[in-house]
Amino acid sequence: MPTPAQMTIDQQAPDLPPTPDFDSYAIPADIVEVGREADGRILRVAWSDGRASRFHAVWLRDNASDPQNLNLETREQNSDVTALPADPAIADARVDGAGALVIRWRPCGTVSRFHPGWLYAHDYGNGGRPNDAEIALVVWDAASLPEPPSFDGAAILEDDALLEAWLQALAAHGIARLRGLPSEPGLVARVGERLGPVRATNFGRVFDVRVKPDPDSNAYTAMALTPHTDLPTREYQPGLQMLHCLQISGSGGRAVMVDGYRIAAHIRQEDPAAFSALTETPWNCSNRARDTDYRWRAPVIALDDSGGIREVRATPFLRAPLEIDFDRVPEAYRALRVFFTAVADPAFRMRFDYRPGDLVAMDNRRVLHGREAYDPASGERWLQGCYVEREELLSRLRILARRRRAAAAARP
Amino acid sequence: MPTPAQMTIDQQAPDLPPTPDFDSYAIPADIVEVGREADGRILRVAWSDGRASRFHAVWLRDNASDPQNLNLETREQNSDVTALPADPAIADARVDGAGALVIRWRPCGTVSRFHPGWLYAHDYGNGGRPNDAEIALVVWDAASLPEPPSFDGAAILEDDALLEAWLQALAAHGIARLRGLPSEPGLVARVGERLGPVRATNFGRVFDVRVKPDPDSNAYTAMALTPHTDLPTREYQPGLQMLHCLQISGSGGRAVMVDGYRIAAHIRQEDPAAFSALTETPWNCSNRARDTDYRWRAPVIALDDSGGIREVRATPFLRAPLEIDFDRVPEAYRALRVFFTAVADPAFRMRFDYRPGDLVAMDNRRVLHGREAYDPASGERWLQGCYVEREELLSRLRILARRRRAAAAARP
Repeated sequence: MPTPAQMTIDQQAPDLPPTPDFDSYAIPADIVEVGREADGRILRVAWSDGRASRFHAVWLRDNASDPQNLNLETREQNSDVTALPADPAIADARVDGAGALVIRWRPCGTVSRFHPGWLYAHDYGNGGRPNDAEIALVVWDAASLPEPPSFDGAAILEDDALLEAWLQALAAHGIARLRGLPSEPGLVARVGERLGPVRATNFGRVFDVRVKPDPDSNAYTAMALTPHTDLPTREYQPGLQMLHCLQISGSGGRAVMVDGYRIAAHIRQEDPAAFSALTETPWNCSNRARDTDYRWRAPVIALDDSGGIREVRATPFLRAPLEIDFDRVPEAYRALRVFFTAVADPAFRMRFDYRPGDLVAMDNRRVLHGREAYDPASGERWLQGCYVEREELLSRLRILARRRRAAAAARP
Repeated sequence: MPTPAQMTIDQQAPDLPPTPDFDSYAIPADIVEVGREADGRILRVAWSDGRASRFHAVWLRDNASDPQNLNLETREQNSDVTALPADPAIADARVDGAGALVIRWRPCGTVSRFHPGWLYAHDYGNGGRPNDAEIALVVWDAASLPEPPSFDGAAILEDDALLEAWLQALAAHGIARLRGLPSEPGLVARVGERLGPVRATNFGRVFDVRVKPDPDSNAYTAMALTPHTDLPTREYQPGLQMLHCLQISGSGGRAVMVDGYRIAAHIRQEDPAAFSALTETPWNCSNRARDTDYRWRAPVIALDDSGGIREVRATPFLRAPLEIDFDRVPEAYRALRVFFTAVADPAFRMRFDYRPGDLVAMDNRRVLHGREAYDPASGERWLQGCYVEREELLSRLRILARRRRAAAAARP
């Protein structure tokens, strides 16, 4: 076994095995002992920081990065699990001079090597979690967050540190603003592409929010809009919406934002029966248009497996006739009224004015966005919007962090 | 009350009220009697075909198409439910000369009129279902469906009847083929847009499936690919994939398709323990790429609320290290092996050769697609692909059916 001091040198050595992905892994501890259990079906690993890990032989065999298993060009597996032995076992295990775990397999006698940092990060038996973009949610109301977290956005197309700061704020609060962008049509999609592909919809890849003749949505009128989520008529509501203000003058049209997670927590606390109805009643949503007919049916509040609030879906102007058991109808309506009464409560409403060059990004599955009515005779109000998925945000945050890790690993 | 004979004439009359959407509704029966229950909170309706319906006042008030409630230009509600009376009641109800239901509300005395065909279709108390695209699923194996249902596709960009036939086959079988298209790069997206917007991903809006230098996916090699779903690393796998063959020569590269619903049903029957593990084990999926890092965690088989099979998510080359309770690992691997053993069974495998000009569409959340290995030295294999969502398919089918209904209603 190398000593920890030797280990530090070996991290730089070219002979640590490749990981099954393209990330860099720190080596927080060295392997100090390995052993076998269950006739080689389980490996025990003791680490220099005192951690004791166990790994199944089948799991190790599946995740080995040797060329018979993994295409090293794509870092993707060469085949499905049926190409692996049904019941692989470990003939022997040891640690080599680079600090890598070396396993000789039974019955074939082939050998696999594992990067110790990768192994430590993937210690599933101890709830190990590999490198990920972990952002703590900050739930807010009008008092705790009177304005969106804001950044000088002039350099957003080039500056990765700015991008990361803005995206972290967006992930935490579900809303974040860039200011001082040029009022350039189409720019919103170029900012969106800093995260990943823009999601095109029947409203286009980029949509103009302004008064239109023969509007196909209330959004394209001067009406006030109760805070809502966009495209609840789709199984998968867009994860993020970006709105870029190109022009604003005249009176009204103030933005109104509400943290749907806050509203849900409030109702869970104050009116558990309404909360249950909101999580259990499938409300129908439908667009009413001449050339498209999108429909979806889902509760206003969706919970995750552990009962946490996962998603809000609530769009007054797209609600369609409820189709549920007859006797549940009155309570479903009562609960919906409780929800929108909370949405109307100034204590939950963030209100702000757009300036030309502002770009506001929202988590459309969490934060409800709306506006006060405006007077189209008094001036012009023109926003451009686009949608990008939450998973693009997370992928971008992971890559930005990965680049920081790689730079740190390359530092002498 | 008009007699049924009068009713037929009145359907043409201009004075039937607008429906709260843009669809046409047949009037299969006339209202012959109306009554109130629960002090006007519930309306009773008797129809000429013997049906007895009940509607809540709150439901009727919410779905009324009068201008105070509905923006008739967009057919969207003007406001959220808090703008409606909390406890609306029916002061009186009657049927007018056009056959419409007329309700006078308490306490305000305003009046709403309802189209009888719309009301009949939305009779929620009797499980009434409005016009929808209802396609019965046909689950298949190699014997029952040796080739994809196929259509002469030359006119697909213009011919709506062809489009509808092809999409109905796709909705039923999860796979359908057009033949005889030109081998024109980019055409696949124009066909995709016949349904709705194309879903762009990190692989582009249209992607080329051919051998590439420095491939970022096993798809872009000459390797055999076990049948799989695409983009399991996203919360929402693409609903539909289209693959258009531009060029094919040389040996190998045969398409292999498997109905994931069939595989799931087979395992449910033959190995209930494996089926449980497949529906309960969250497998990690990750892409391994230099500039993106998408991850998702979900079972191989997802069930709907009533235990039906909703979705399959299985991509051997994107499986990432499993992170579940230690003791569940062996059974999770056993179940995955059962799944891919079934996928490898010729009894479930549809196999066919592409011809230039073929375009195959698949339900990517149901049908697993793969290929046999090919020899890139022996010739060229070039497919172009794009993704479109299931909801675009359903919207398009609804609109095509709606146009047929409107044409039938307009016929003298």
